[in-house]
Order: sequence, then structure tokens, then C-alpha cells
Amino acid sequence: LSPGKRHLKKQESTFFGRNSMMLGDTNVPLYKQLHLSWTRPPSNCLVIKKYHDPAVLKKFKMMCIWLITVRGLDVYVEEKDFEELQTIKAGELPRSSSYDNFKSISTKNLDIEFIGLIEKIKVWKIGKDKLNNKIDFIACLGGDGTLLYASSLFQRSVPPIIAFSLGSLGFLTPFDFKEFPTVLNKVLKGTLGFTLRNRLESTLWSRGAEGESEEDDDHIIIPESVQVLNEVVIHRGIYSGVCMIDIYCDEFFVTTVIGDGVIVATPTGSTAYAAATGASIVAPSVPCYIIAPICPHSLSFRPIMVPLNCSLKCKLNKDARGDAQISFDGRHMQDFTKNHIVDISASEYPLPCIDKEGSMQDWFNGLQNTLLWNGRSSAQKPLEKKK
Amino acid sequence: LSPGKRHLKKQESTFFGRNSMMLGDTNVPLYKQLHLSWTRPPSNCLVIKKYHDPAVLKKFKMMCIWLITVRGLDVYVEEKDFEELQTIKAGELPRSSSYDNFKSISTKNLDIEFIGLIEKIKVWKIGKDKLNNKIDFIACLGGDGTLLYASSLFQRSVPPIIAFSLGSLGFLTPFDFKEFPTVLNKVLKGTLGFTLRNRLESTLWSRGAEGESEEDDDHIIIPESVQVLNEVVIHRGIYSGVCMIDIYCDEFFVTTVIGDGVIVATPTGSTAYAAATGASIVAPSVPCYIIAPICPHSLSFRPIMVPLNCSLKCKLNKDARGDAQISFDGRHMQDFTKNHIVDISASEYPLPCIDKEGSMQDWFNGLQNTLLWNGRSSAQKPLEKKK
Amino acid sequence: LSPGKRHLKKQESTFFGRNSMMLGDTNVPLYKQLHLSWTRPPSNCLVIKKYHDPAVLKKFKMMCIWLITVRGLDVYVEEKDFEELQTIKAGELPRSSSYDNFKSISTKNLDIEFIGLIEKIKVWKIGKDKLNNKIDFIACLGGDGTLLYASSLFQRSVPPIIAFSLGSLGFLTPFDFKEFPTVLNKVLKGTLGFTLRNRLESTLWSRGAEGESEEDDDHIIIPESVQVLNEVVIHRGIYSGVCMIDIYCDEFFVTTVIGDGVIVATPTGSTAYAAATGASIVAPSVPCYIIAPICPHSLSFRPIMVPLNCSLKCKLNKDARGDAQISFDGRHMQDFTKNHIVDISASEYPLPCIDKEGSMQDWFNGLQNTLLWNGRSSAQKPLEKKK
Amino acid sequence: LSPGKRHLKKQESTFFGRNSMMLGDTNVPLYKQLHLSWTRPPSNCLVIKKYHDPAVLKKFKMMCIWLITVRGLDVYVEEKDFEELQTIKAGELPRSSSYDNFKSISTKNLDIEFIGLIEKIKVWKIGKDKLNNKIDFIACLGGDGTLLYASSLFQRSVPPIIAFSLGSLGFLTPFDFKEFPTVLNKVLKGTLGFTLRNRLESTLWSRGAEGESEEDDDHIIIPESVQVLNEVVIHRGIYSGVCMIDIYCDEFFVTTVIGDGVIVATPTGSTAYAAATGASIVAPSVPCYIIAPICPHSLSFRPIMVPLNCSLKCKLNKDARGDAQISFDGRHMQDFTKNHIVDISASEYPLPCIDKEGSMQDWFNGLQNTLLWNGRSSAQKPLEKKK
Repeated sequence: LSPGKRHLKKQESTFFGRNSMMLGDTNVPLYKQLHLSWTRPPSNCLVIKKYHDPAVLKKFKMMCIWLITVRGLDVYVEEKDFEELQTIKAGELPRSSSYDNFKSISTKNLDIEFIGLIEKIKVWKIGKDKLNNKIDFIACLGGDGTLLYASSLFQRSVPPIIAFSLGSLGFLTPFDFKEFPTVLNKVLKGTLGFTLRNRLESTLWSRGAEGESEEDDDHIIIPESVQVLNEVVIHRGIYSGVCMIDIYCDEFFVTTVIGDGVIVATPTGSTAYAAATGASIVAPSVPCYIIAPICPHSLSFRPIMVPLNCSLKCKLNKDARGDAQISFDGRHMQDFTKNHIVDISASEYPLPCIDKEGSMQDWFNGLQNTLLWNGRSSAQKPLEKKK
Repeated sequence: LSPGKRHLKKQESTFFGRNSMMLGDTNVPLYKQLHLSWTRPPSNCLVIKKYHDPAVLKKFKMMCIWLITVRGLDVYVEEKDFEELQTIKAGELPRSSSYDNFKSISTKNLDIEFIGLIEKIKVWKIGKDKLNNKIDFIACLGGDGTLLYASSLFQRSVPPIIAFSLGSLGFLTPFDFKEFPTVLNKVLKGTLGFTLRNRLESTLWSRGAEGESEEDDDHIIIPESVQVLNEVVIHRGIYSGVCMIDIYCDEFFVTTVIGDGVIVATPTGSTAYAAATGASIVAPSVPCYIIAPICPHSLSFRPIMVPLNCSLKCKLNKDARGDAQISFDGRHMQDFTKNHIVDISASEYPLPCIDKEGSMQDWFNGLQNTLLWNGRSSAQKPLEKKK
Repeated sequence: LSPGKRHLKKQESTFFGRNSMMLGDTNVPLYKQLHLSWTRPPSNCLVIKKYHDPAVLKKFKMMCIWLITVRGLDVYVEEKDFEELQTIKAGELPRSSSYDNFKSISTKNLDIEFIGLIEKIKVWKIGKDKLNNKIDFIACLGGDGTLLYASSLFQRSVPPIIAFSLGSLGFLTPFDFKEFPTVLNKVLKGTLGFTLRNRLESTLWSRGAEGESEEDDDHIIIPESVQVLNEVVIHRGIYSGVCMIDIYCDEFFVTTVIGDGVIVATPTGSTAYAAATGASIVAPSVPCYIIAPICPHSLSFRPIMVPLNCSLKCKLNKDARGDAQISFDGRHMQDFTKNHIVDISASEYPLPCIDKEGSMQDWFNGLQNTLLWNGRSSAQKPLEKKK
Repeated sequence: LSPGKRHLKKQESTFFGRNSMMLGDTNVPLYKQLHLSWTRPPSNCLVIKKYHDPAVLKKFKMMCIWLITVRGLDVYVEEKDFEELQTIKAGELPRSSSYDNFKSISTKNLDIEFIGLIEKIKVWKIGKDKLNNKIDFIACLGGDGTLLYASSLFQRSVPPIIAFSLGSLGFLTPFDFKEFPTVLNKVLKGTLGFTLRNRLESTLWSRGAEGESEEDDDHIIIPESVQVLNEVVIHRGIYSGVCMIDIYCDEFFVTTVIGDGVIVATPTGSTAYAAATGASIVAPSVPCYIIAPICPHSLSFRPIMVPLNCSLKCKLNKDARGDAQISFDGRHMQDFTKNHIVDISASEYPLPCIDKEGSMQDWFNGLQNTLLWNGRSSAQKPLEKKK
């Protein structure tokens, strides 16, 4: 099955979960602006929150109550979050006046009511696709890190995600928590657009350590695949020498990275670690990978963007002296030795992230507000004309 | 008509000229590797050459003779080249032994025969699409600059181009002239792949200078469109102050470039001027634009890549103090004042460039051979492990 | 023991071991923090202002009055500024309450008094060193551009300069005009530090156009020297091809710049045009030049810093196809042809610029406030520890 | 009048005009080209070699024999190298014809003679300055890594070093081993120039872990100083989050690095790790430090150069979440926690490295040959003039 063919699958109407489908010119994988619509009203919502942060717990509670009592949805939470909820006692909830539009229950009685409502909340256990197919959409509370975590929970198709920031807005969390009732009403109505953020499917192959020859593919024993939203990183870690990593594209050898390591990033990841290496920044809907060296020895190792329908392969060069470390979205860090190969290709399962103002607008806002892109002080006025 | 829809048109069989069509997964505008095939044997070839270079003239003559006598094609040349051909006298042609595979006519008699053949050559005049539709393919002799010139001749659909380098190979000229008989035989047989290089459609609007208000669109009088293969450049020219250029994407304001200027480049152009500004390099089949500032005042003005289905607009900021210059693929340089607006969108007419080894392989070869990408001296071995 | 003192030890003959010693000219200073002191009280001040800006004219007037009436100094102004002063009529001066510390004359009567004082103001004409030697210090009102202009007026030794910004503070204008009486009192007392900003002495040699051979130095006819505070720029201007500029260091050939041009900058200039090319930023007291290519063709043309005691020479490469433009601190733009050579060496005449908090502190403040160096939004917090 | 001499004028009291003069420590040198001279003929040479490389051992042996037999010097070697020499048996030495100028002993009898000469070789043990003061010069065999090792052996004053490359030439190893007799004769004659490469004195302070307050300086217990030739690196190591490092300059706070880490490099180190981060490259005699962030979060964190007479201090920010790693010239890697502070200042003990053609020439040769600086393929000719 070619990558192109696999992409076509994305356009089936039930791809993103039980009740959602996307509209738009679906024969063009270069998405411009997609819009959410529901074939029948959404009824199940998974709420994911940043782990172990007391300030988040209260907001999390508030949103769960609202979804159950005001909108009558079935609310799912992760087991660890469910346990945390049990620890809340009456009187601990904030008396915030900032949720005036939270009409149906008085914030005064929030915690009392909540304790009564806890039994209505259902526990969602990570388990491939059975429960996933019950979820109509995901509400995410936290920063970009929490959204990366949410992405990691869904290794196959992902329901639409609405991401609320708890403080400063991020690229992946464009909504302010304070507006959650208004925003969630729009989600339920299906009037918002979304961006399909491509993920990478990374498969790490490791050969047994007994000294087989490099070609002895029969002994490759541990293929593990992971869907990556930001980037795969191979880094020298604490080895004080340099990494030497061979890069292959569609099975032909491209180059050897000599330096601290290499990043293979999505456009979503282009504003994260890849940006720190000096790579250009890519809008999320451009169907490409970014290959960016980390501190390369060569002065001329400019980062490159290759089309998403290429497949990449990385392994240590035979002359490499030390082992490296590999990580996926900053997680699952492990040794990357001469016994390892990582395959990277376009994932069939992109992440549908609900837009605030629009795919491109949100992105430009993120560039300016989060990265201070093209930032200038008021002093940087153009110089006067010379005499 | 949405950009997506327009892209679909590209996949009709007669798009690239009289007899050619392309194969491949044509529902995916993210082309991987396309292959040339002919619905009926090609019979008309336009030969374009670098202007006024005596060394080229001889090679040009040799190729024309070969196409006519060996392969029986109708050969078209530009009027200026036709005139130049008349000046060749018997005895001036090289007695190169490097064309041993040029079997049917002896190089010894090349110039004598040629003078006899001149009358068989037809003159091609630039004239939109009438003559263009007669051309089955274009053979181009010269460097990347000559191919840019060839691109400028075809403002609408372009026949497949096979580009021969006269000296060192370039990104756009992967074939060595010495192999032309072998290569052209493959072209005629239809066994080679090609890369569709996206072009930009740039429209320069200029308002009359009589002082109309900015909104007075009725007075916009001179829209001129041009298909651009590499880049549109707006530059301060000899104005000693800085440019201030406002960039709009899909009608919303993005940012103001303050600096020497701005480049809007195709992936093809990412190895040209855009590379000199520090932008990352993009494979030709990635459907995106590069927006790269030239010497920006802001330390944080990283170049960006936006999807090809956006439409861009640039104009001088109202506070700009001096005029700028605009150019298209380094040509048509003219003033860019507050009375001008340039619209840039994906062209419906990409350039089908015949590949040597394959789209991605040719590109990686170009990166390494032409740009010395990730170049290292033999001294840049990894350091020994520290004690 | 200060670092400076410790360095002195290096010059002892037995420093490197038993029998070695070093020779050489080791006396070029690396200034740390210099302090102003007066051998006798300063009595003559030149006030320079941004040209033709009504807002500046009023502040200029206010400062002149203060210097004359409150501190009893002789005030010099440029002829063009003197003429502009004549145009002020009574009643035109601002009634600002922000100059409360301006005690000796009431702002109410500012313009009336001023007209009476005008005859006390002396005209300073640019004329090498005769008048220059009368000036004890310069007060400069305007932005960095005005200070560059002030630098251009003093082609030999420069009195200490105190630079007041009229709006946003710059690298060269650290003082807010509102605090001028306090600040000028400190200057007169001699309690402030200053930074010696190195300048470049640039000499442009042009050969007669009659076609002499390149070696025919007898015909070099127009040597012109200029002291440059920021940078010498050689740029392709509106020539649409690339510049080819040969760089020599201490008479040996270094490299050929192929691109838009080249900048030879001082550390002071490292925050101006050179920064826009991507060069690193250099504190003003580091005794070096920056050689930074502008949009170089080569991916590996990293900017370099060479010691100030080198002498540089630039000329067009013999294969260059078009002429270039040369400018000095953005001024004196003129053609730079194959008949030109520019010599660049350390000027004997640095610019003593009075510091606000200290040489390094002012510089770091400028980096952060003016260039938003290492700027981060509040959203760019470090990511949480991964699970 | 040399630039150096002209600079001296600056220090006269009337330099800045009528009444001003400058004060301060103005005596820190900017070396141009230094030359070696001997007060009496050198008699003791330390030969240092790359560790445990059989190919080096033979060359090492050859050089030792030559120094003893041909030039009559006392030769010192490290203890580990001395032991390695014992393992050589007769007949193992190469019969190279490339040392024709090695006249006094026939290479045929090299190993037989050598075994007889071994007892003449003296063992040098690292022990501060007593033995060091016996050494007139050091001959170093190996790559840049071996020279860094040699630098680490001399924590105080360093005798002049002549560095022979065994394969490809490096920045620090400009001499080809094949020419060693000619080159060493020049060293002994004292006709070569040298470059004083500044080192950094790094002192790592660690507080006891018992929980003292940050201010409790009495409990700082382990100050360790090390002389660094290339750079001090603080890096996140395998911690998957970002480093947060506070930088102080002369006791005032400068900025917080958020990213993979930070490099404080000498100009010598500017061609090593710092170059990989994108910093500009600095000639070895420029008296400055380079502060270069490694993969910074901020788009605007341009590397900076500060004068060598500043003193720097780095520590983890109080909000840093993970520990970091610190290393010195790639050695002594250890944890860098909130209990650590590193002080960095100019070392009193620079490394005198003998030049091949001259300080600047050798450096430019290194840039071009080792780093392929401003490298271009023959294809990167300037484009033809546009029509």
C-alpha cells in the first residue's frame, strides 16, 4: 500500500471517531481549512488534564461538571485523574467570578454538587480502539506538553481535540480556559474548523545483541511503532563524542549526520526543538518532514524539508564510536545502538486539532505570541534617509 | 474555483503539450515520482540554448542535426538562435571524438551536412499557446539560468523539458551534454521520470500615479501576470534605508518585513536566492511557498513555509520611506512603490522537468554536488573518545 | 589582581618555560571600563541634533538654554541648526511639566529668553581640527542615525559624546532626554564612564578610467579616507547578478565573496546591518572587525571576526560581471567598479561614548531592549518533565 | 607606523580633545604576530603522542631517535608512552622512504638503534611546575584531540608547542609529520612565529549537599580550576527537558539560557563545538569569549562575543527542573546541579602554538581546508546577466 493510497483513507467519514466527519475538498491532502461536522450529536467526551497540578484539578472538575450537568454528556477521564478527583473535599473549589456564563449551577455549590456527580464520570483506560471509538471528542487541559501526551494515548485514529491552555497560549493550545463554555458549545454545534496535524509513524527495530551480522534480518526481534506529533530525536546524550547517523530516504542513502544528533520533525514540531536548531518554520498543513541536524560538524548542513510520502530510515554509521539515545516527542528515551534502525513514515492517523480563528490565523498568532517571531522593539524603527 | 480544484486539472492527459501525459497516483497532488509516457510518438522538439555563447552554438547545431537526421523530428528554434545559425560556416564545427555514439552522421561532415539541413529547421516565435501546443518536448542547452529563461517563454502549459548542462551540472540541468543521444532516445521512448516543479503566478497591480486613495480599486490599471519558477524578490535596491513590506496571507495581515527585502520562493527556488538568506531547503515536490526575509532587522524573523493553496499579497507599508524594486526570477526588474501590489499564488502551470535518476535522487545529488550540502573535509572526522 | 594586570605577566621573557621568550608589539589595549576625567572644567559644548524634525528643535533649544544660562558654557551648533533656530518665534516652545528639575529659568519664558540668548550661540563649521579642538564634549539629540552623523563630522579625534534619545533608546543613545540636566551635570563633573568605540579607517582608491593595467599604481588618483563607526558595505545594488568581491587580509588573499555583497563592520556595527546577515554580536570593546557576507551563494560562508590590527583590502574579482555600490555607515554611496580598491584598517580615532550604567551593562541593556535578544514570551516556559 | 604603534597614541592624555583624558587599565595586549626566540639553545623536549595507536607509535619512535641522535636533545615522554615503547621489538619499525632527510641514521637500523636508545629517554610525570620548567618545547603527534590533551597536562605556564598531524591537518595541528626534521630544525633555530591561544580558567564551585542556604558560602567546599583551550559546555545531557542556566558577567545578571545548554568558548574553540551552534568564527588572537547557546528556545538568542577581561559566572536557574552536565574541553564531564557555580575568566596561561605560515594565514588555511569555509562547487559560478 503506497503512502498516497494510505492517505486516501483519511478521507472516510468515520475516520476521526464515532460521530465526526470532515468536510472540504477531500481529494486534496494539502488541506486548506477543514470544518468539523457531526453526523449525530456527540455524546461522549474524554477530558485529559495535566498531571498532578492542583490548579488544574479545580478547572478540570469545573469542566466535567459543566459537560455533565449543562450539556448532558457522558464524561470519561483517565484512571489516574479519576483517583485524583476522589481526593477533593467539599469547600475546596474556587469561587471564581470569571465563569459567569456558567449558568446552570452556582459555583458556590460546585464542590458539593461535584461530589455527587463523581459517580457519573466514567473511567477511560488506554486500550487501543475499543474505547477510543466511543469518544466523540477530547477536551484537553494543559500546555503543549499535555497535548503531546494526549497524542501519545491515541496510537491509531484520534477524535477531534479541543485544547485549553491554563496560562499562556501555545501553538497547540489556542483556547483560553476562561471561555470554555462558549467554546465547547461551538464544538458541540460543529461550527469550528480544525487542522489535521500530520504525525510520523516511527518504528524502532532492534536486533538481538548476540552478534548477528548486520544483514541477518531474521533476528530483528522488537519492532515497536509509535505515532509522533512533534519529532523523533536521535542525540548523543551524555556520550562526549559526536553521533554519526546515516540517513536513508526511500531506501537510498542520503547523508551522514555528524554532530550532536538529528531531528526528524513534523511541521507541528517545526516550532519546537527543530526551531531551536535554526530550521525554518513550516505551517502545519504542509505535507512534509523536516530533517534538521543538531549542532552539525559541517558548516553547510542546512536543514531540509522532504515530502511526506518519502519514507526515512536512520541508523548509526558503522564508524560511530559511541551509542546514542532516541526519543519520540521527548518520551520513551532509550539507547540507540548499532543494533537499532528506526523507520519513519507518514502516519495514517493525523491529529485533528480544533482551530480558534482558522488554521493559518492560529498558526501566525502562535508564531507571534509564542515565539515572538519577527519581534521588534519600538526602537527598531527604520533608519532615517541618509543625507 | 478553489486551488485544490485547479490542481486537479493538471492531471488531464494533454496538459503538458500535444502528446504527453503523466502516470502516477494522480489523485495525490503531493507527487512522489511521475513518469512520462507518450500517447503517440513525439514529433516536434523545441531546442533552446544559452544566448550568444560560441561554445554552445556548436553543441546546439550538433543536437539539431541529430534530432532531424537520426530521429526524424521536426526541430524548432527561437528566431534569434535561427539567425545565429546562419552565421556558421563550413569547417567551424568541432571534430569531437566524444560523440562516438553519434553514429548515423560522421562528425567529419557535420558542418557541411548542417548547412544543408538549416532549411529544415523551423522558427518558433513566442506566441502564447498556438505554437506551444505543437511542441512535444523542449531540449534546453545551458545552465540553470537558461532553464529559467525557458520557463519564462511558457506562460501557460509547458511541454516536458530535458535540460542539458554545458559544464558543471545544476539543480535544473542534471544531464551532461555528452550523453545527449542516449538520453534523448530515452525521452523519445518515454522511459524517464519527471518532476513537476510548481511555479508561482505573480500579478503586479499598479495604480495610476494621480494620487487616488488606496481603496480606489477602479483605477488599478496595469495587472501583469508572470509565472515564476524560482522566486519573486522585493528588494530595497539602491535605496540606502530599509524596505518595509506588508505581507498578507489569504487576505489577512501577517507581518511587516523590515530589512533589505523579502523573497517569496518555490521549493525549486529554495536552493537559489532563498538559500543565501539562511532558509531551509525544500524538495521540489513539497507543495509550499517559502517566505524568507532578506537581512531582516529583527533577530527572530525566521523564514517560514506556507502551504501552496494560500494566496499571498505584498505591498509597501504606509510608513515606508523609499521605493523598492521587484523582480521575477531575476528578470523584469522594476520599481515597486506604494502604488503597487503584488499577488502571488500557485500557478496552474508547473514545469515538468525530466529526471535523471529520480526526483529525490536528483535533488540530493544536486544538494551535494552543487551546494556542497553537509560537506566535510577528510579532516572532520569524529573526535576520539575522551579519556 | 585585575585581569589586565595579570596579563602583563605574559610579557616577561621566561613566561613560556625555561628558555623561551616572546617578541612582538604587545601593547594594543583591550579596554575594560574607562572613566572620564577633566584636567580643567569643560567650557565648550557642541550640540548636534537630528535634522529638520520640529519636535527635536524644541528640545534642542531647551538644552542650549540650559547649558548657557544654568551652566555658563559656550554652546556651539552647526550652521544649518543655527539657521533653523532663527525661525522659532516666541510662544512656540512647549510648556512641558516634565522638566521640573530645570530650575533656573521658567519654561514659561523659555522662548522669550531663548531669542535673547540666540546671539550667544556660536556656529561650528566642519573644518578638520581647528574648531574641533575647542570642543570639550558633544551633546547629541536624536537616534543612532544622528550619532552616526556626528561621527561623520569628526574625521580625526572626537571629543566625548553624550547621546540623548528622543524616543526609544538605542545602542548608541542610552540616555533619555528627560533626564538631561541631571545627566549633563554628571558629565561636567566627570563622574561617568565611557566606551571607546573603535572606528574603521576606509580609504577608497580609484584608478583613472583610461584603461591602465591593474598594476599601474601610478595612476591611482583619488584616495579618499573616511572614519566609519558601523560598517563599510559593498553591495550589488540594483545589478541583478551577484557581486564577486576579493578580500585580502594583511596583503594575502583570503576569499572571494559571491553573493549580494559583504559587510566589514566594527563591534558597534555588529548590532546593525551585520546582525541582519546572521553574524554573532560583539561587545563594543572587543578589538576586532567582523567580515560578514550578505546573502552568500555558499552554504558554508560563516561570518568571521579578525583582530583589529589586521588591515583589509577589498576589490571586485576579475570575473565579476557587474559593478557594485560601496557605502560607509550608510552614506557616501557610490559605484564600486573594477577600478576601485578599498583599504580598511583600525582608525586611530575611536569614538568616546559616555556610558549610562557601564560599558557592558549598557550593551546588554541594548541587546535586550533594542534587539529583543533572547526574547521569550511568557508561554515559552520549559516543558514539564516527561513521564 | 604599524597599527599597534598608532594605537599607543590613544593613551596620551589629550587624545580626546582639549580637556579630556581617559583613565583605566589599558595594557591588555592584542597580539599580531609573535616570534619565537631562544635565550640559549633548547635542550629538553617533551614528546606527546596520541594514545594507543600503533601507527603513531612508530612515528613517535622515529621522532625520539631523531631528536636524541641527530640533535642531541634530552627527550621526555609520558610514563604511559614510555611503557608502550618497551613493547616494540626489533624489526617492527617501518622502512619508510619518505624520511630521506633523516640522514644520520639509516632507517634500516632504526629499531635496533632505538632499542639501544630507549634508556636515554626520560619519563615526564605530570607534576605541576617542577618538571614543566625543564621542558623547552613540546612536540605533539596526533590530531586536535591530542593537542587538547597536551593543553590539559599544563595547568600553568606552557612551553611552546609544535603540533604534527598524522593524517589530515587540523586547526591546531598545521604541520605534516613527514616534514618533521625540517620543521624541528626551524624550531630549534627559533625562526618560526607562534600564536598565543588564550585559555579560560574555569573554577567549579560545589556546595555540600546537606541543604545549606544558597548564600552560605562558607560551605562551598570543592573549588577546582581547570585551564580550557576550547570551551566549557553546560548541557542537559540525557535529561529530556531543557536546561535553564543563568549567566552573569562581572557579577551582574545577563540572561537565562533556556535550551540544550550553553557554550563558553575561546576563539580557538570557535571552530569546534561553538561553530556547530551557528556562532561566527573568531581568529585566535582576538581577546574575547564566545557565549553561544545550544539549541535555544528563543528565536532571537544570537551568540555574543564579550571581551576577555570580563569574568563570567554560570549557575542553574532556580526554576530549573533537572540537573545538567558540565565538561571542559570535552573532558571531566560531571553533574552540574543547583549546588554548583562555575566561574570563567581569562587564563593567565595561554598556549603558545607554533605557526606554519603565520598566525592569520594558518587560520584562514584551516577555515578553508578543515571547515570548507565559503566552499563552492565549480557549478556555483555567478549567474549570467539577465536579459
